[in-house]
Amino acid sequence: MSLKKIKVHPYLIPKPVAIIGANIEEKANFLTIADLCTTGYKIPRFVISSGKGHYTNKGILENKEFSVTIPSSTLVKEADYVGIKSGKKVDKSKIFDIFYGELKYAPLIKNAPITHSCELVENVDFGDTHYLFIGEIKETYVNEKVMEGRIPDIKKVDAFSYYYDNNYYSVGNVIAQAYKVGKELE
Amino acid sequence: MSLKKIKVHPYLIPKPVAIIGANIEEKANFLTIADLCTTGYKIPRFVISSGKGHYTNKGILENKEFSVTIPSSTLVKEADYVGIKSGKKVDKSKIFDIFYGELKYAPLIKNAPITHSCELVENVDFGDTHYLFIGEIKETYVNEKVMEGRIPDIKKVDAFSYYYDNNYYSVGNVIAQAYKVGKELE
Repeated sequence: MSLKKIKVHPYLIPKPVAIIGANIEEKANFLTIADLCTTGYKIPRFVISSGKGHYTNKGILENKEFSVTIPSSTLVKEADYVGIKSGKKVDKSKIFDIFYGELKYAPLIKNAPITHSCELVENVDFGDTHYLFIGEIKETYVNEKVMEGRIPDIKKVDAFSYYYDNNYYSVGNVIAQAYKVGKELE
Repeated sequence: MSLKKIKVHPYLIPKPVAIIGANIEEKANFLTIADLCTTGYKIPRFVISSGKGHYTNKGILENKEFSVTIPSSTLVKEADYVGIKSGKKVDKSKIFDIFYGELKYAPLIKNAPITHSCELVENVDFGDTHYLFIGEIKETYVNEKVMEGRIPDIKKVDAFSYYYDNNYYSVGNVIAQAYKVGKELE
Protein backbone atom coordinates (compact mmCIF):
# COMPACT_ATOMS: atom_id res chain seq x y z
CA MET A 1 0.00 0.00 0.00
CA SER A 2 1.28 3.43 -0.82
CA LEU A 3 0.20 6.57 1.00
CA LYS A 4 0.19 9.94 -0.68
CA LYS A 5 0.13 13.26 1.12
CA ILE A 6 -2.76 15.32 -0.17
CA LYS A 7 -4.07 18.80 0.64
CA VAL A 8 -5.25 18.76 4.26
CA HIS A 9 -8.93 17.73 4.34
CA PRO A 10 -11.20 16.71 7.23
CA TYR A 11 -11.97 13.21 5.98
CA LEU A 12 -14.01 11.18 8.42
CA ILE A 13 -16.31 8.38 7.24
CA PRO A 14 -19.23 8.00 7.76
CA LYS A 15 -20.45 11.47 8.81
CA PRO A 16 -23.92 11.20 10.38
CA VAL A 17 -26.64 13.47 9.07
CA ALA A 18 -28.64 15.32 11.73
CA ILE A 19 -31.17 18.11 11.66
CA ILE A 20 -30.54 21.01 14.02
CA GLY A 21 -33.58 22.99 15.13
CA ALA A 22 -33.84 26.39 16.79
CA ASN A 23 -36.46 29.07 17.24
CA ILE A 24 -35.90 32.40 15.56
CA GLU A 25 -38.42 35.18 16.14
CA GLU A 26 -40.87 32.64 17.56
CA LYS A 27 -40.66 30.41 14.50
CA ALA A 28 -38.98 27.04 14.25
CA ASN A 29 -36.05 26.89 11.84
CA PHE A 30 -34.00 23.87 10.79
CA LEU A 31 -30.56 23.18 9.36
CA THR A 32 -28.98 19.92 8.26
CA ILE A 33 -25.39 19.18 9.20
CA ALA A 34 -23.03 16.22 9.17
CA ASP A 35 -20.23 17.64 11.31
CA LEU A 36 -21.29 16.70 14.81
CA CYS A 37 -20.53 14.20 17.54
CA THR A 38 -21.45 13.42 21.11
CA THR A 39 -19.37 13.52 24.27
CA GLY A 40 -19.93 12.03 27.70
CA TYR A 41 -22.43 9.55 29.06
CA LYS A 42 -23.31 10.71 32.58
CA ILE A 43 -23.82 14.23 31.29
CA PRO A 44 -24.19 13.64 27.56
CA ARG A 45 -23.61 16.53 25.17
CA PHE A 46 -23.78 17.22 21.46
CA VAL A 47 -20.90 18.99 19.75
CA ILE A 48 -22.00 20.70 16.56
CA SER A 49 -19.95 22.47 13.93
CA SER A 50 -21.97 25.15 12.19
CA GLY A 51 -20.74 27.52 9.48
CA LYS A 52 -21.07 31.09 10.69
CA GLY A 53 -23.36 32.11 7.84
CA HIS A 54 -26.19 29.83 8.96
CA TYR A 55 -29.39 31.56 10.04
CA THR A 56 -30.11 28.86 12.65
CA ASN A 57 -27.08 30.07 14.67
CA LYS A 58 -29.00 33.24 15.55
CA GLY A 59 -31.64 31.23 17.40
CA ILE A 60 -29.10 28.99 19.12
CA LEU A 61 -27.08 31.98 20.35
CA GLU A 62 -30.11 34.00 21.45
CA ASN A 63 -32.11 31.31 23.24
CA LYS A 64 -29.29 28.96 24.23
CA GLU A 65 -31.44 26.02 23.17
CA PHE A 66 -31.55 23.79 20.13
CA SER A 67 -32.66 20.34 19.02
CA VAL A 68 -30.81 17.49 17.32
CA THR A 69 -32.88 15.06 15.27
CA ILE A 70 -31.75 11.82 13.64
CA PRO A 71 -33.77 11.57 10.44
CA SER A 72 -34.64 8.26 8.84
CA SER A 73 -34.20 7.82 5.10
CA THR A 74 -37.91 8.59 4.60
CA LEU A 75 -37.00 12.18 5.60
CA VAL A 76 -34.06 12.53 3.22
CA LYS A 77 -35.86 15.04 0.97
CA GLU A 78 -36.81 17.23 3.91
CA ALA A 79 -33.32 16.94 5.43
CA ASP A 80 -31.71 17.96 2.15
CA TYR A 81 -34.20 20.79 1.66
CA VAL A 82 -33.51 22.40 5.05
CA GLY A 83 -29.80 22.06 4.29
CA ILE A 84 -30.11 23.82 0.92
CA LYS A 85 -32.54 26.61 1.80
CA SER A 86 -31.73 29.36 4.27
CA GLY A 87 -34.27 30.45 6.85
CA LYS A 88 -33.33 33.99 5.85
CA LYS A 89 -35.25 33.42 2.63
CA VAL A 90 -37.81 30.66 3.22
CA ASP A 91 -40.07 29.69 6.12
CA LYS A 92 -39.02 26.17 7.15
CA SER A 93 -41.32 25.95 10.17
CA LYS A 94 -43.89 23.83 8.32
CA ILE A 95 -41.53 21.26 6.78
CA PHE A 96 -41.75 18.91 9.77
CA ASP A 97 -44.46 17.97 12.22
CA ILE A 98 -43.04 19.65 15.33
CA PHE A 99 -43.57 19.79 19.09
CA TYR A 100 -41.81 21.24 22.11
CA GLY A 101 -40.71 19.36 25.20
CA GLU A 102 -39.31 20.95 28.36
CA LEU A 103 -37.24 23.47 26.42
CA LYS A 104 -39.41 26.17 24.92
CA TYR A 105 -37.05 27.16 22.11
CA ALA A 106 -35.93 23.73 20.90
CA PRO A 107 -38.35 22.56 18.18
CA LEU A 108 -38.51 18.74 18.14
CA ILE A 109 -39.48 16.68 15.13
CA LYS A 110 -42.40 14.31 15.66
CA ASN A 111 -42.07 12.27 12.46
CA ALA A 112 -38.47 11.26 13.16
CA PRO A 113 -37.14 8.14 14.92
CA ILE A 114 -34.99 10.02 17.49
CA THR A 115 -35.00 13.66 18.57
CA HIS A 116 -33.16 15.45 21.42
CA SER A 117 -33.46 18.85 23.06
CA CYS A 118 -30.25 20.56 24.18
CA GLU A 119 -29.16 23.53 26.23
CA LEU A 120 -26.16 25.43 24.86
CA VAL A 121 -23.38 25.30 27.43
CA GLU A 122 -20.40 26.44 25.39
CA ASN A 123 -19.57 27.99 22.02
CA VAL A 124 -15.98 27.39 20.97
CA ASP A 125 -15.16 30.10 18.43
CA PHE A 126 -11.74 30.01 16.77
CA GLY A 127 -12.42 33.28 15.01
CA ASP A 128 -12.65 31.67 11.59
CA THR A 129 -15.47 30.10 9.59
CA HIS A 130 -17.36 27.88 12.07
CA TYR A 131 -18.89 27.89 15.51
CA LEU A 132 -18.58 24.79 17.64
CA PHE A 133 -21.73 24.64 19.72
CA ILE A 134 -21.73 22.32 22.71
CA GLY A 135 -25.13 21.50 24.14
CA GLU A 136 -26.09 19.42 27.13
CA ILE A 137 -28.80 16.94 26.13
CA LYS A 138 -31.85 17.57 28.29
CA GLU A 139 -34.34 15.18 26.66
CA THR A 140 -34.24 12.22 24.30
CA TYR A 141 -37.40 11.07 22.50
CA VAL A 142 -37.57 7.86 20.52
CA ASN A 143 -40.34 6.54 18.30
CA GLU A 144 -41.72 3.47 20.04
CA LYS A 145 -41.78 1.56 16.77
CA VAL A 146 -37.99 1.67 16.44
CA MET A 147 -37.29 0.44 19.98
CA GLU A 148 -35.90 -3.08 20.30
CA GLY A 149 -35.52 -3.94 23.93
CA ARG A 150 -33.58 -1.18 25.71
CA ILE A 151 -32.27 0.66 22.67
CA PRO A 152 -33.40 1.85 19.26
CA ASP A 153 -32.81 -0.74 16.56
CA ILE A 154 -30.31 0.63 14.06
CA LYS A 155 -32.06 -0.89 11.06
CA LYS A 156 -35.44 0.46 12.13
CA VAL A 157 -34.01 3.94 12.77
CA ASP A 158 -32.69 3.82 9.19
CA ALA A 159 -30.41 6.86 9.62
CA PHE A 160 -28.03 8.01 6.91
CA SER A 161 -24.68 9.69 6.40
CA TYR A 162 -23.18 12.24 4.04
CA TYR A 163 -20.02 12.00 1.98
CA TYR A 164 -18.05 14.52 -0.10
CA ASP A 165 -19.11 12.85 -3.32
CA ASN A 166 -22.41 14.65 -2.56
CA ASN A 167 -24.40 11.56 -1.77
CA TYR A 168 -26.31 10.34 1.25
CA TYR A 169 -25.56 6.76 2.29
CA SER A 170 -27.56 4.25 4.29
CA VAL A 171 -26.02 2.33 7.19
CA GLY A 172 -24.78 -1.02 5.95
CA ASN A 173 -24.50 -4.39 7.63
CA VAL A 174 -22.78 -5.79 10.70
CA ILE A 175 -19.14 -6.52 9.89
CA ALA A 176 -17.98 -7.60 13.35
CA GLN A 177 -18.83 -7.58 17.04
CA ALA A 178 -17.30 -4.77 19.07
CA TYR A 179 -15.35 -5.66 22.24
CA LYS A 180 -15.04 -9.17 20.85
CA VAL A 181 -13.44 -9.43 17.40
CA GLY A 182 -10.25 -7.80 18.73
CA LYS A 183 -9.80 -10.58 21.27
CA GLU A 184 -8.62 -12.80 18.41
CA LEU A 185 -5.38 -10.80 18.50
CA GLU A 186 -4.69 -11.43 22.17
CA MET B 1 -45.94 7.63 14.92
CA SER B 2 -45.63 7.92 18.64
CA LEU B 3 -42.61 9.38 20.41
CA LYS B 4 -41.64 8.28 23.88
CA LYS B 5 -39.37 10.19 26.22
CA ILE B 6 -36.55 7.92 27.37
CA LYS B 7 -33.57 8.41 29.67
CA VAL B 8 -31.29 11.00 28.06
CA HIS B 9 -28.81 9.26 25.78
CA PRO B 10 -26.40 10.59 23.14
CA TYR B 11 -27.89 8.75 20.17
CA LEU B 12 -26.31 9.71 16.89
CA ILE B 13 -26.22 7.27 13.96
CA PRO B 14 -23.87 6.30 12.38
CA LYS B 15 -20.88 7.06 14.64
CA PRO B 16 -17.64 6.76 12.63
CA VAL B 17 -14.88 4.59 14.03
CA ALA B 18 -11.43 6.18 14.08
CA ILE B 19 -8.10 5.23 15.61
CA ILE B 20 -6.36 7.92 17.63
CA GLY B 21 -2.58 7.68 17.91
CA ALA B 22 -0.16 9.40 20.27
CA ASN B 23 3.37 8.86 21.51
CA ILE B 24 3.86 8.01 25.16
CA GLU B 25 7.38 7.65 26.47
CA GLU B 26 8.70 7.45 22.91
CA LYS B 27 6.35 4.63 21.99
CA ALA B 28 3.31 4.82 19.74
CA ASN B 29 0.00 4.08 21.41
CA PHE B 30 -3.46 3.78 19.86
CA LEU B 31 -7.07 4.08 20.98
CA THR B 32 -10.28 3.50 19.05
CA ILE B 33 -13.14 5.92 19.44
CA ALA B 34 -16.43 6.69 17.73
CA ASP B 35 -17.21 10.03 19.35
CA LEU B 36 -15.51 12.49 17.05
CA CYS B 37 -16.27 14.96 14.30
CA THR B 38 -14.60 17.57 12.17
CA THR B 39 -15.04 21.33 12.06
CA GLY B 40 -13.99 23.91 9.49
CA TYR B 41 -12.66 23.67 5.97
CA LYS B 42 -10.11 26.47 5.56
CA ILE B 43 -8.52 25.47 8.86
CA PRO B 44 -9.89 21.95 9.36
CA ARG B 45 -9.88 20.45 12.83
CA PHE B 46 -10.81 17.21 14.52
CA VAL B 47 -12.91 17.25 17.68
CA ILE B 48 -12.41 14.12 19.75
CA SER B 49 -14.19 12.97 22.87
CA SER B 50 -11.96 10.80 25.02
CA GLY B 51 -12.84 9.27 28.37
CA LYS B 52 -10.44 10.56 31.02
CA GLY B 53 -9.20 7.09 31.92
CA HIS B 54 -7.56 6.50 28.53
CA TYR B 55 -3.79 6.13 28.54
CA THR B 56 -3.51 7.80 25.09
CA ASN B 57 -4.62 11.12 26.66
CA LYS B 58 -1.28 11.34 28.46
CA GLY B 59 0.59 11.49 25.15
CA ILE B 60 -1.87 13.94 23.59
CA LEU B 61 -1.62 16.29 26.57
CA GLU B 62 2.16 16.06 26.88
CA ASN B 63 3.15 16.40 23.22
CA LYS B 64 0.13 18.32 21.92
CA GLU B 65 0.10 16.06 18.89
CA PHE B 66 -1.98 13.10 17.80
CA SER B 67 -3.13 11.23 14.73
CA VAL B 68 -6.59 10.29 13.45
CA THR B 69 -6.83 7.27 11.18
CA ILE B 70 -9.87 6.01 9.27
CA PRO B 71 -9.55 2.21 9.30
CA SER B 72 -11.00 0.05 6.55
CA SER B 73 -12.95 -3.06 7.49
CA THR B 74 -9.81 -5.16 6.95
CA LEU B 75 -8.47 -3.45 10.12
CA VAL B 76 -11.56 -4.12 12.26
CA LYS B 77 -9.76 -6.67 14.47
CA GLU B 78 -6.89 -4.29 15.15
CA ALA B 79 -9.25 -1.35 15.71
CA ASP B 80 -11.27 -3.37 18.20
CA TYR B 81 -8.14 -4.64 19.92
CA VAL B 82 -6.66 -1.18 20.53
CA GLY B 83 -10.07 -0.13 21.84
CA ILE B 84 -10.26 -3.05 24.31
CA LYS B 85 -6.68 -3.09 25.58
CA SER B 86 -5.12 -0.25 27.53
CA GLY B 87 -1.60 0.93 26.73
CA LYS B 88 -1.07 0.88 30.49
CA LYS B 89 -1.01 -2.90 30.27
CA VAL B 90 -0.01 -3.88 26.74
CA ASP B 91 2.40 -2.50 24.16
CA LYS B 92 0.30 -1.50 21.14
CA SER B 93 3.17 0.03 19.17
CA LYS B 94 3.54 -3.04 16.93
CA ILE B 95 -0.13 -3.55 16.02
CA PHE B 96 0.05 -1.31 12.96
CA ASP B 97 2.70 -0.53 10.37
CA ILE B 98 3.50 3.04 11.41
CA PHE B 99 5.39 6.09 10.17
CA TYR B 100 5.78 9.74 11.17
CA GLY B 101 5.16 12.75 8.97
CA GLU B 102 5.94 16.34 9.92
CA LEU B 103 4.75 15.90 13.48
CA LYS B 104 7.21 13.87 15.52
CA TYR B 105 4.73 12.64 18.12
CA ALA B 106 1.79 11.70 15.90
CA PRO B 107 2.17 8.06 14.81
CA LEU B 108 0.48 7.54 11.44
CA ILE B 109 -0.83 4.20 10.18
CA LYS B 110 0.59 3.05 6.87
CA ASN B 111 -1.81 0.17 6.21
CA ALA B 112 -4.92 2.37 6.43
CA PRO B 113 -6.80 4.19 3.66
CA ILE B 114 -6.68 7.65 5.31
CA THR B 115 -4.56 9.00 8.16
CA HIS B 116 -4.13 12.56 9.51
CA SER B 117 -1.68 14.23 11.87
CA CYS B 118 -3.04 16.90 14.22
CA GLU B 119 -1.76 19.55 16.57
CA LEU B 120 -3.76 19.96 19.78
CA VAL B 121 -5.11 23.50 19.90
CA GLU B 122 -7.72 23.23 22.64
CA ASN B 123 -8.90 20.86 25.34
CA VAL B 124 -12.46 21.54 26.47
CA ASP B 125 -12.77 20.01 29.93
CA PHE B 126 -16.17 20.16 31.64
CA GLY B 127 -14.74 18.64 34.78
CA ASP B 128 -16.57 15.36 34.36
CA THR B 129 -15.82 12.11 32.55
CA HIS B 130 -14.42 13.16 29.14
CA TYR B 131 -11.91 15.47 27.53
CA LEU B 132 -12.83 17.13 24.27
CA PHE B 133 -9.60 17.45 22.33
CA ILE B 134 -9.57 19.82 19.37
CA GLY B 135 -6.70 19.38 16.95
CA GLU B 136 -5.81 21.32 13.85
CA ILE B 137 -5.18 18.89 10.98
CA LYS B 138 -1.65 19.43 9.73
CA GLU B 139 -1.37 16.56 7.23
CA THR B 140 -3.72 14.21 5.40
CA TYR B 141 -2.40 11.03 3.78
CA VAL B 142 -4.51 8.85 1.51
CA ASN B 143 -3.74 5.46 0.02
CA GLU B 144 -3.44 6.01 -3.71
CA LYS B 145 -5.50 2.90 -4.40
CA VAL B 146 -8.62 4.41 -2.78
CA MET B 147 -8.45 7.71 -4.69
CA GLU B 148 -11.07 8.24 -7.38
CA GLY B 149 -10.44 11.52 -9.11
CA ARG B 150 -10.02 14.29 -6.54
CA ILE B 151 -11.36 12.43 -3.49
CA PRO B 152 -11.15 9.04 -1.79
CA ASP B 153 -13.85 6.69 -3.03
CA ILE B 154 -16.14 5.83 -0.13
CA LYS B 155 -16.56 2.19 -1.20
CA LYS B 156 -12.81 1.69 -1.58
CA VAL B 157 -12.09 3.31 1.80
CA ASP B 158 -14.53 0.79 3.29
CA ALA B 159 -14.76 2.57 6.66
CA PHE B 160 -17.15 1.45 9.38
CA SER B 161 -19.22 2.75 12.25
CA TYR B 162 -20.10 1.68 15.77
CA TYR B 163 -23.51 1.32 17.38
CA TYR B 164 -24.68 0.72 20.94
CA ASP B 165 -25.80 -2.79 20.09
CA ASN B 166 -22.03 -3.48 20.20
CA ASN B 167 -21.59 -4.06 16.52
CA TYR B 168 -19.53 -2.45 13.82
CA TYR B 169 -21.42 -1.58 10.63
CA SER B 170 -20.25 -1.03 7.06
CA VAL B 171 -21.31 2.02 5.08
CA GLY B 172 -24.35 1.13 2.97
CA ASN B 173 -25.53 2.37 -0.39
CA VAL B 174 -26.43 5.72 -1.92
CA ILE B 175 -29.98 6.64 -0.98
CA ALA B 176 -30.13 10.10 -2.56
CA GLN B 177 -28.07 12.93 -4.00
CA ALA B 178 -27.23 15.74 -1.59
CA TYR B 179 -28.03 19.33 -2.61
CA LYS B 180 -30.44 17.89 -5.15
CA VAL B 181 -33.12 15.58 -3.72
CA GLY B 182 -34.42 18.42 -1.52
CA LYS B 183 -35.15 20.55 -4.56
CA GLU B 184 -38.19 18.37 -5.19
CA LEU B 185 -39.82 20.19 -2.27
CA GLU B 186 -39.30 23.66 -3.73
